[in-house]
Amino acid sequence: MSNEISFARGAPSLDIVDVEGLRAAADSALTEDPRGTTAYGTAIGYVPLRAWIAERHGVGPEHVIVTNGSMQADALLFERVVRDGDDVIVERPTYDRTLLSLRERGARVHAVDLGTDGLDTDALASLLEGGVRPKLAHVIPNFQNPAGYTLSLERRRALLELAATHGFMIFEDDPYAALRFSGESLPTMLSLDPTNVTYASSFSKTVCPGVRVGYLVGPEELIGEVTRLATNTYISPSMIAQSIVYRFCVSGALERSIETVRLALRERAAALGEALAEELPEARFDAPEGGYFMWVTLPQGADVDALYRAALERDLHFVKGTDFMLDGGENTLRIAYSGVTPEQIREGVSRLAAAWRSLS
Amino acid sequence: MSNEISFARGAPSLDIVDVEGLRAAADSALTEDPRGTTAYGTAIGYVPLRAWIAERHGVGPEHVIVTNGSMQADALLFERVVRDGDDVIVERPTYDRTLLSLRERGARVHAVDLGTDGLDTDALASLLEGGVRPKLAHVIPNFQNPAGYTLSLERRRALLELAATHGFMIFEDDPYAALRFSGESLPTMLSLDPTNVTYASSFSKTVCPGVRVGYLVGPEELIGEVTRLATNTYISPSMIAQSIVYRFCVSGALERSIETVRLALRERAAALGEALAEELPEARFDAPEGGYFMWVTLPQGADVDALYRAALERDLHFVKGTDFMLDGGENTLRIAYSGVTPEQIREGVSRLAAAWRSLS
Repeated sequence: MSNEISFARGAPSLDIVDVEGLRAAADSALTEDPRGTTAYGTAIGYVPLRAWIAERHGVGPEHVIVTNGSMQADALLFERVVRDGDDVIVERPTYDRTLLSLRERGARVHAVDLGTDGLDTDALASLLEGGVRPKLAHVIPNFQNPAGYTLSLERRRALLELAATHGFMIFEDDPYAALRFSGESLPTMLSLDPTNVTYASSFSKTVCPGVRVGYLVGPEELIGEVTRLATNTYISPSMIAQSIVYRFCVSGALERSIETVRLALRERAAALGEALAEELPEARFDAPEGGYFMWVTLPQGADVDALYRAALERDLHFVKGTDFMLDGGENTLRIAYSGVTPEQIREGVSRLAAAWRSLS
Repeated sequence: MSNEISFARGAPSLDIVDVEGLRAAADSALTEDPRGTTAYGTAIGYVPLRAWIAERHGVGPEHVIVTNGSMQADALLFERVVRDGDDVIVERPTYDRTLLSLRERGARVHAVDLGTDGLDTDALASLLEGGVRPKLAHVIPNFQNPAGYTLSLERRRALLELAATHGFMIFEDDPYAALRFSGESLPTMLSLDPTNVTYASSFSKTVCPGVRVGYLVGPEELIGEVTRLATNTYISPSMIAQSIVYRFCVSGALERSIETVRLALRERAAALGEALAEELPEARFDAPEGGYFMWVTLPQGADVDALYRAALERDLHFVKGTDFMLDGGENTLRIAYSGVTPEQIREGVSRLAAAWRSLS
C-alpha cells in the first residue's frame, strides 16, 4: 500500500462524496425522465437543470448554458472572446489551467497581485490608466485557487466600476462559493451588476468532480454564441450526468452534501493551520474561510523547488507556487486540504517540516 | 398532442433504449467503483472502459481515448490534424456536422462521390493523381450517414492502398457498425492496416445518445497529442457516464440492447421500403443492410426544397439531400427510420406521397 499523502489535488476525498445520494439520483433520473436522460439533448444542457441554475441566480434560462465541467465552459468562452494578441487580466497567483488556456490562445496575460482581500484593484486601475485594454479579467472571487483568499465587497464594487468604465468583461469564476465555513457570504458580482459579468461555476465541489457538470451565466447574446460553438463541438453535453445532478439538487441531497463538505473542510483547514503553526513556524499563511486551498509563504530566499523534491522523497506531494504565476513565487506553495483527513494532514505537515529541515 | 412525424433525427426511439439496463448499470457503477465513478479522471477516459474498447479492437489501451461523444473526438482530432487551407476528402453526400466542422477549420474540402458500395476510390485516385494532397479522408464505412450505403471490402482495400501511397490519414468514422441487420459484416480498415487509420465510434447507437460517450482509436503518438488537447479543454470527460457505460457493456446488457435495436431497425427499414414502393413509386432507393438511414432519389428535376415545405405543412420532417453536400442533390432526401415505429413510418410515407402529389 502506498504511503503517499497528497496536498496537491484540489479534489474531495471519497468520504465526503454522497455516493448513496448519487445512486438515488441516478435511479430517479431514469425513472422520472427516461427520455430526457437517454436522448440527445441540445448544447444548452439538460433543460430542467438549466432552469434550476437560472432560478438560483435570479436570471432567465436564456442566460445559462450547462457544460461538461466548467473548464469546457471556459474553453468555449475564451474561443469566442479572446483573440491572438488580446490583453487579458488574471490574478497573481491564479489557477494554472486558466493561465495555460489563455496563453495557448495567444492572449497577452497581465497578472495583477492578489491580496488577502482579493485582486488589487488599485494596481489594476493603474494598469488600465497606462493603456492596457483588456478583453476580460479572470477573477476567482471566493477562496481563490491557489491562494484561498476572498475578494472583499469593496473590491468587488471597485472591479465592477473599472469594468464599466473601461469596457471589459469580468469573468467571475466561482466554483467554491458554497464552501464557506466561517465568516459571511458576499454577493456575486453577477448579482451586483450583470452587465459586464460572465459567471462560471460547477457541481464538482458540491456533488462530485466525476459528473463533470459546470455552467456559464452571462448576457443572452454571448450565451447564444457560446451555445452555437458547443453545438458544433459536441452536439449536447452528457444528458445522463446532468439529469443525475438535477435529481441530486431537487431531492435535497445537494444541501446535505454541501453541509458535509463544509464541516469536513472546516476541520481540515483548522488541522492544517494548527499543524503548520506547531511544526513549521517559519510558514506564513492566512486561515481560509472556505474552499480547498491554503497558500503558504516561506521566508524570503527559501527554495520551494528544493523543498518539493525533498517532500517527494518523503511521499508528500504539493504544488509549487511558481506553477500559478508567470514569474516569481519561488518561496511559496499551495496546500490543498480537501482530499486528506486531519490525520493525513498532521502526518503530511510533519513530513513537510522534516523536508524543510533537511534543506538547512 | 402533436401529430408530428420526424424522419429527420438520427436517433433511437425511447422504446428501443434499455432504460432498466441503464438503471442497473448506474447502480453497479456506484457500488463497484464509487471512487472511479465520482472522482476526476484523466482525459484518456474511464480506465476500465478504455481497456474494454482496446480489447474489442485488438489494440493496446495507449491507442484509445474515450471522449464526451464522438463528435468531441472529431473536434479534437481536427484541431490537431487539420490546418487552415489543408486539403481534406469527404464523401458526397456526407454527415452535415462533419462537413461544417471541417469547413469552419478552413479546410479545402474535396467531396468524392459515394456509390452503393461506398466512396468511389477510382475518382479519389484521379483526384490524387491531379495533385490534391489531403491530410485526411473522412469515411463513414458502414450504413453511411446520410446514404445508408456500405463501403465494400474491395474499396476498403483500395482506400488503404491510396492512403499508404499518398500519405494521408483515413478517418474511419464508424458508429453504425454494430447495427447490421442483414448481409455480412466487413472488417474495419483499422483492423486491416492500422498504420494510416484513425477510427472513431460511439455508444450513442448501442447504449443511448444521452450518455455522450464516444472514442478514438489511432496511433499512440496521435492519441497522446489528442489527449493533451482534451486535458486542456475539459480535464476529464464525464466519469459517471463512462462508468455507467462500462457496467452496461460488461453486464451483457450491451449485447441484448444491440439485438433489440437491430430487430427494430430491420422491421422499420422494411416498413419504409414497402411503403415507399407502394405510395411513392417515383422514389428510388437501395434497401439498407443496417443503420438508421435511407437515401431517396426523386426524378431528375424534382424540387425537394418545395417537397420539404409541403411535408412540413403535413407535420412531417425530413432532411434535404442538399444539407449533406457542398452542391447538387436538389432531388434527394434522407429518411431516418431509427426514431419512428412502423405505423409512424407508414403514416409518414403517406404524408410524403401526398406532399409530392401536391407539387404536380
